[in-house]
Amino acid sequence: MEATEFVIEILCTGNELLSGTIVDTNAQWISSKITDAGGCVRRITVVGDEVNEISSAVKESIERKPNWLIVSGGLGPTYDDKTLEGIGTALNLKLVLDNNAVEMLRKSYTLHGLTTNYELNHTRLKMARIPEGSTPIQNPVGSAPAVLIEIANKTTKIICLPGIPKELKAIFSENILPQIKKSISDFYIVRSFCETIGISEAMLAPTLSSIVDMYPSDSVYVKTHPQGYTSDNKPRLRIQIISKGKDRSKVQIRYSNILNTLIENIELLGGKINSNVKL
Amino acid sequence: MEATEFVIEILCTGNELLSGTIVDTNAQWISSKITDAGGCVRRITVVGDEVNEISSAVKESIERKPNWLIVSGGLGPTYDDKTLEGIGTALNLKLVLDNNAVEMLRKSYTLHGLTTNYELNHTRLKMARIPEGSTPIQNPVGSAPAVLIEIANKTTKIICLPGIPKELKAIFSENILPQIKKSISDFYIVRSFCETIGISEAMLAPTLSSIVDMYPSDSVYVKTHPQGYTSDNKPRLRIQIISKGKDRSKVQIRYSNILNTLIENIELLGGKINSNVKL
Repeated sequence: MEATEFVIEILCTGNELLSGTIVDTNAQWISSKITDAGGCVRRITVVGDEVNEISSAVKESIERKPNWLIVSGGLGPTYDDKTLEGIGTALNLKLVLDNNAVEMLRKSYTLHGLTTNYELNHTRLKMARIPEGSTPIQNPVGSAPAVLIEIANKTTKIICLPGIPKELKAIFSENILPQIKKSISDFYIVRSFCETIGISEAMLAPTLSSIVDMYPSDSVYVKTHPQGYTSDNKPRLRIQIISKGKDRSKVQIRYSNILNTLIENIELLGGKINSNVKL
Repeated sequence: MEATEFVIEILCTGNELLSGTIVDTNAQWISSKITDAGGCVRRITVVGDEVNEISSAVKESIERKPNWLIVSGGLGPTYDDKTLEGIGTALNLKLVLDNNAVEMLRKSYTLHGLTTNYELNHTRLKMARIPEGSTPIQNPVGSAPAVLIEIANKTTKIICLPGIPKELKAIFSENILPQIKKSISDFYIVRSFCETIGISEAMLAPTLSSIVDMYPSDSVYVKTHPQGYTSDNKPRLRIQIISKGKDRSKVQIRYSNILNTLIENIELLGGKINSNVKL
């Protein structure tokens, strides 16, 4: 196997994601960071703010044994922030008031100059009640600490991140991504998007099949995305190309070969390439 | 129970969703339509273009017995369009060339004036190979037909929609949403977003708890979304209010009561309401 198989699952919690009130961008952002680091996001699950729903989703994920389960949302002080309760239920862990987490909350409130009117009452301390044996991580932007859960004899590390994108991004970039990168070590990826006119998905399908058959399935990815038709009824297509692996020169050679094969076949089929943009 | 419990699950397929290349907007769009119709989206799952992944996700969903499972993506002609194969594996149904689906493809190509160079070859006919006993639905925008699968003795209806948003929206609005609305019948919903300054999520948490305790859990939904701080370090908060149910006047009275309770408590706590926008 050329590319590493470091498997990640993402679990997003929040009724607002299931009612269509909010477009979830957290899962997409995390997925793109994981992919760039050489990891593989195997599944994304979205459930509502219910203990049983969260607990089932966590149990099911752990049974699939990913290296990490990244959970987003539900760490705040309100009645519907139930992520830690759900995880506690799934793993049979009690929620306990964690002194380090209390100190992190205190630090967060001080950081925002919020000392008066911001005593650590019952509601706020909810954010410091975490599954026994887990590790809180300081939230440098908001208040609720992230929570890292490592269970003996289990493959999967669980990290619970706050759902607010600025907070999630800060903690993930500073604390989690470096750990994931370290586990994966050397990894290279080239991605591009190629825009074409005059060629349909079906016309190019045999070319795509022959390309992917030439390489290990985890080292290349070529996909066509139909973009409708031009005013004179010519199909527009966007082609995504990914080459990845541990050997930088192999990754680059593979990418060039794929691009050349595509260019050749698109021209043969009477299509035109408008642009190829590397990401 | 005041609001109906008509449960829907959504399954999105596509490696591009797991690599963070694309933000999935289909699930959010479907969820918002379902919520407005009075249905309840219980879970959203995203898996890659692999038969086993799709098959497992479909089996797991059916075991949870939602009324509908809405599947998005993977109906096209390319090697990685594997949704129907995955569903066939999950339900033990063979894929068979469906004459109606072939006619639909022919109609789609004619519609776009694509008659020359667009013979129905093996690659294109892949889109007409559907699980035995299922029903194809004409795609009025693109080519791949949608596929409706109703299994005897199973609670769950499965609808497979093309992943391209314009195509998905057209078929869902014309063919599926009317069926779902008919099953749910009378339903009313009032939604709004209220913007406040000077009040934190933790300060308002007890008010929220007392509001939700007053009503059946499926008839109201109140959630705070922290929006950071103003330049003079005052917390900004967005409050989402939903009141829903089968009795229009009860829905409206509940909404007004909740809003009044919020206004009263926010002012008592020294906060300020900037706006309340009904959606």
